[in-house]
Amino acid sequence: MAKLVTAVIKPFKLEDVKGALSALGIAGLTVSEVQGYGRQKGHTEVYRGAEYQVDFVPKVRIEVLVDDIDAAKVVDSLVAAARTGKIGDGKVWVTSVDEVIRVRTGERGLDAL
Amino acid sequence: MAKLVTAVIKPFKLEDVKGALSALGIAGLTVSEVQGYGRQKGHTEVYRGAEYQVDFVPKVRIEVLVDDIDAAKVVDSLVAAARTGKIGDGKVWVTSVDEVIRVRTGERGLDAL
Amino acid sequence: MAKLVTAVIKPFKLEDVKGALSALGIAGLTVSEVQGYGRQKGHTEVYRGAEYQVDFVPKVRIEVLVDDIDAAKVVDSLVAAARTGKIGDGKVWVTSVDEVIRVRTGERGLDAL
Ligand SMILES: Nc1ncnc2c1ncn2[C@@H]1O[C@H](COP(=O)(O)OP(=O)(O)OP(=O)(O)O)[C@@H](O)[C@H]1O
Ligand SMILES: Nc1ncnc2c1ncn2[C@@H]1O[C@H](COP(=O)(O)OP(=O)(O)OP(=O)(O)O)[C@@H](O)[C@H]1O
Ligand SMILES: Nc1ncnc2c1ncn2[C@@H]1O[C@H](COP(=O)(O)OP(=O)(O)OP(=O)(O)O)[C@@H](O)[C@H]1O
Ligand SMILES: [Mg+2]
Ligand SMILES: [Mg+2]
Ligand SMILES: [Mg+2]
Repeated sequence: MAKLVTAVIKPFKLEDVKGALSALGIAGLTVSEVQGYGRQKGHTEVYRGAEYQVDFVPKVRIEVLVDDIDAAKVVDSLVAAARTGKIGDGKVWVTSVDEVIRVRTGERGLDAL
Repeated sequence: MAKLVTAVIKPFKLEDVKGALSALGIAGLTVSEVQGYGRQKGHTEVYRGAEYQVDFVPKVRIEVLVDDIDAAKVVDSLVAAARTGKIGDGKVWVTSVDEVIRVRTGERGLDAL
Repeated sequence: MAKLVTAVIKPFKLEDVKGALSALGIAGLTVSEVQGYGRQKGHTEVYRGAEYQVDFVPKVRIEVLVDDIDAAKVVDSLVAAARTGKIGDGKVWVTSVDEVIRVRTGERGLDAL
């Protein structure tokens, strides 16, 4: 069935990630603004040229529902597009989805993607 | 056990969805503001009377924890309430939850809903 | 593998929860602003000294990816830190994660946490 790929990335990398997913033919995406920290909590992380001493750094959270079969290449592509090589590049995780429904048509399962 | 029903819908449909869930006796709900696109990325979608040429359209993300047994009717009811018949109506997905805890009482499982 | 612990709590309890998780050596955290209601929808709930008659009360949503083995103690500790004993203290749920990737290094699985 479908997988849900969730990614928390640097906000300025959203355009690159969108492009990478489009190139794979991914039809949809949901984005929200979040804040977070990883292993370097308490250390500085650079955001928009400013150093953040604070714990929470602004990030973008992305959710993409994909066909099970495409999950691995979506993840690889997303991770490559989001990477800068500097700390704070982000985290991606994959979960299993029991059911998907497209509201307008009522389609279910992979047809609903 | 419990299921998590997540829906990304048109913001003006939130009240209808809330009503539909209340009518089913659903006790709680979590809502956040997101942006997204579906299959018509790059085409226009109407939001508050304005046409969006942009990729990202404002949506509302809803999360509802429900008893496994109620999941199907919650989904049907939510989908019906969110539908306008126009593109961009939204996506709903269901995932399995291992454990739920009600913070105030420490109750677990279905009692925690 | 990994579990995802999601919590919707009172915003002023975020610092306590962060402290409790740090004390357990939890490396990262993602936070977003949400609104919600639980079982007392339509009744009042106090937020920043004001009584909310409205349905939606501002909450903070926390996501923590943890090693399976640590999930139970993370939940207990988070719940204890978030509790005030008053209504609206929040909900915590645990889901299973198929895969985690650390974007900068490409590490996978528990190494990625
Ligand atoms: N364990 C976690 N649980 C939930 N969210 C996390 C976790 N770790 C990181 N995040 C989220 O991902 C964002 C980016 O994390 P980050 O890339 O700093 O991870 P990291 O493991 O510290 O890797 P790096 O060493 O490359 O910085 C954080 O700001 C946070 O929002
Ligand atoms: N594959 C997806 N992954 C994650 N979120 C999605 C996905 N597809 C759609 N969404 C979210 O749902 C919202 C509404 O999607 P939308 O209803 O446009 O889907 P659609 O498949 O294009 O259906 P329609 O043809 O009726 O417009 C999007 O703005 C986005 O936030
Ligand atoms: N069934 C649910 N599904 C999704 N989110 C929920 C659900 N129930 C509660 N929440 C979220 O958790 C927040 C806090 O819920 P709350 O603590 O009021 O739950 P409760 O069961 O009413 O417990 P209490 O009696 O202690 O108030 C809500 O504002 C909402 O965001
Ligand atoms: Mg880091
Ligand atoms: Mg669409
Ligand atoms: Mg309540």
